[in-house]
Amino acid sequence: MKWCRFEVGGRAAFGIVEGDEVVAVEGSPFETWAPTGRRHALARVTLLVPVIPQNFYAVGLNYRGHIEWAAQRHHLKVAVPAQPDVGYRSPNALVPAGADIVIPGDSPGPVEFEGELVAVVGRRAKHLAEDEALGCLLGYTLGNDVSERAWQQSDRTLWRAKNTDTFKPMGPVIETDLDPMTQRIRVRLNGRLVSEYDTGAMIFGVRQYIARMTRYLTLHPGDVIWFGCDGPTEPALQAGDLVEVENDAIGVLRSRVVPAA
Amino acid sequence: MKWCRFEVGGRAAFGIVEGDEVVAVEGSPFETWAPTGRRHALARVTLLVPVIPQNFYAVGLNYRGHIEWAAQRHHLKVAVPAQPDVGYRSPNALVPAGADIVIPGDSPGPVEFEGELVAVVGRRAKHLAEDEALGCLLGYTLGNDVSERAWQQSDRTLWRAKNTDTFKPMGPVIETDLDPMTQRIRVRLNGRLVSEYDTGAMIFGVRQYIARMTRYLTLHPGDVIWFGCDGPTEPALQAGDLVEVENDAIGVLRSRVVPAA
Repeated sequence: MKWCRFEVGGRAAFGIVEGDEVVAVEGSPFETWAPTGRRHALARVTLLVPVIPQNFYAVGLNYRGHIEWAAQRHHLKVAVPAQPDVGYRSPNALVPAGADIVIPGDSPGPVEFEGELVAVVGRRAKHLAEDEALGCLLGYTLGNDVSERAWQQSDRTLWRAKNTDTFKPMGPVIETDLDPMTQRIRVRLNGRLVSEYDTGAMIFGVRQYIARMTRYLTLHPGDVIWFGCDGPTEPALQAGDLVEVENDAIGVLRSRVVPAA
Repeated sequence: MKWCRFEVGGRAAFGIVEGDEVVAVEGSPFETWAPTGRRHALARVTLLVPVIPQNFYAVGLNYRGHIEWAAQRHHLKVAVPAQPDVGYRSPNALVPAGADIVIPGDSPGPVEFEGELVAVVGRRAKHLAEDEALGCLLGYTLGNDVSERAWQQSDRTLWRAKNTDTFKPMGPVIETDLDPMTQRIRVRLNGRLVSEYDTGAMIFGVRQYIARMTRYLTLHPGDVIWFGCDGPTEPALQAGDLVEVENDAIGVLRSRVVPAA
């Protein structure tokens, strides 16, 4: 089942994608909901970010191939993590599938993509064991963790490097039926395949992260956890580029790169 | 004017504090609002976190006295920041004035208080100049940035050290009429004054942070920015302690420290 959030008549509504149509829903998948009789052609609705999370978690370093590449290419001093320590992003930077990624005029670059699997929390959860961890999730979507590498190195925190407005495309939909550890994630730049990896290569898996996180914090409906990416994240994004993060079950998260006006 | 959020009849409502009463309000200070005829005795209502932010920013190192103390006492390798780079916390950890701070059973300690001034954003803002920066704010409240120092050093990120559930008391109210750069912040532990400093000692002030942040990101109504603390944050919190962050204009943010059940 595929959940989306879309704009209709100036309002945001949740919907269920069925083929090339969206069935509008009253309520939300995080509380109670019921289908309305209204159907819209998917091609004619404006998709929104599938959920605005209250808490926006992101796993920074979760694939060996990406850590090795970052150490060599960007001279980042990073060791392979010994335990699953999650990081944060902030909702200000979220934009939906189809929206532009806007590069600030003073960005030294390179600005790079990171195509990631995203888990979406469906119900309040604390103290989950690994074998029950996936039960708190509504489903999965895709994220593009756009990163300004010069600022990532120069600044004391990641705020500007990772959270400049529009730097966190997320979508297009939330797929509820999917094994998070057997997914193929691909990134295309102007149609050309530039990254391809399997989520099975995660250093710590989705279950391990959720079990450890909920030992200390409560997960809330709508919270999201981005799981990092594997391999290189080159070539750098340039104004005019079309970048696509794709997964066979979830779909394509497509963004155009534009310079600041 | 003092805004609060409180529970009445099982629902959350905003209110205006007048003397020892709360005037209930329809709507919110972040959109439109109107006073209702209902008044409640302040002593009889349960205060809630004054706002659940969509984006929760926190300035990590903003006072020289605290940086020098942290370097010496906790052997943290920190330089005085050369530019205002903001960090993040996450709303999961917020609790209101009067709620307990719960120390996990496996915390090696020390767990320390950090009494801070918090700015609350009132309207959407981007590209603000320093001299107009304060105009986007609704007002100010207090925060206690509770920190597990062992985890702060052992973990790759601050998630558990700073964002374990209940580690972010915030409140009691939002004061709209206050100069953020001339405030005295005090922390009492079991009634004894353990920290006292002036916000005028910030390395980068509230105006400078907001101008720089809004160059890259949009501030949204309800977003909060915590501004760090000065000086030592000892002695460590122990189960049974009563910790109070206070400011003459805003009031007292009082929390009891308890062990996990």
